[in-house]
Amino acid sequence: MKSGQAEIMETSKGIQKSGLMSRRIAILEFILRIVAFFNTIGSAILMGTTHETLPFFTQFIRFQAEYNDLPALTFFVVANAVVSGYLILSLTLAFVHIVKRKTQNTRILLIILDVAMLGLLTSGASSAAAIVYLAHNGNNKTNWFAICQQFNSFCERISGSLIGSFIAIVLLILLILLSAIALSRRH
Amino acid sequence: MKSGQAEIMETSKGIQKSGLMSRRIAILEFILRIVAFFNTIGSAILMGTTHETLPFFTQFIRFQAEYNDLPALTFFVVANAVVSGYLILSLTLAFVHIVKRKTQNTRILLIILDVAMLGLLTSGASSAAAIVYLAHNGNNKTNWFAICQQFNSFCERISGSLIGSFIAIVLLILLILLSAIALSRRH
Repeated sequence: MKSGQAEIMETSKGIQKSGLMSRRIAILEFILRIVAFFNTIGSAILMGTTHETLPFFTQFIRFQAEYNDLPALTFFVVANAVVSGYLILSLTLAFVHIVKRKTQNTRILLIILDVAMLGLLTSGASSAAAIVYLAHNGNNKTNWFAICQQFNSFCERISGSLIGSFIAIVLLILLILLSAIALSRRH
Repeated sequence: MKSGQAEIMETSKGIQKSGLMSRRIAILEFILRIVAFFNTIGSAILMGTTHETLPFFTQFIRFQAEYNDLPALTFFVVANAVVSGYLILSLTLAFVHIVKRKTQNTRILLIILDVAMLGLLTSGASSAAAIVYLAHNGNNKTNWFAICQQFNSFCERISGSLIGSFIAIVLLILLILLSAIALSRRH
């Protein structure tokens, strides 16, 4: 009889420990989503408010550069805005994972959405990075000149806004892995 | 006694059905990896063998265009080559998931690697897409001319090679979701 009771005690301790671990994963997930939100919204705002007017101009031309002069930078702003909106909404599900125990279906839904957002964010950040690289270095084979030689502060801001987005990409990858680990701990 | 036996029969039928479902997921996964492999290796080869020499030339200049004239296209070739190598190697783990039942740890490992490869492939394809878009349309705000007006077949091939890579991105997203579903069915 005694060994039976000991066994039951053992299993219930195990379940408690496992429940505690799942809750910690859920809390960490909640925090990472908030950090990723601030990174993506910051990137979208920084890029979306980037424009520069050069101090010299001619009778006909005024030298200006705005982020939406380049489609890849516009795509970057849209992608970061969409992902930051998603991250705020996903906090509700992340909160459910903290308070509730049976979270298998919402976790699979969250992994599906996180992977889709990872694709969108990586796509936005990478295409913008390709254009920012070109703006800095130009390309003499195609005669595309490095505009950053004239528009210095424009280029600093568009480069700076990439950093937040790439940090959010790393955080999204971590979130997907946390969800996978939480899913596998389900039994 | 009878109801006990019926119950045992019921549970063992359940386990059998669940095992069958898991095996089907594993086989589907194996096939998707092979399809994704051919898409990425095809994209890498198509892009990597792209070059065009225009029929006219001057005393000093011969008009040529090669994929490695543009760093984003070189990154595309490297990313697709790395991911196709990974996909071949991952077939071994995918095969283990077909034959073995206890696959939790290898599934988590595969999700981690798949997510990383998704990031790399999306990054390669998106930065190349930004440059291909620029090559086709140019940008009059930055005076970057559309080189596709001269290098027609070069542009057709670099655009065509993007398709295989984006198909492989969709397949990788499916693979991650299949792994998540398989992980959640573990109990």
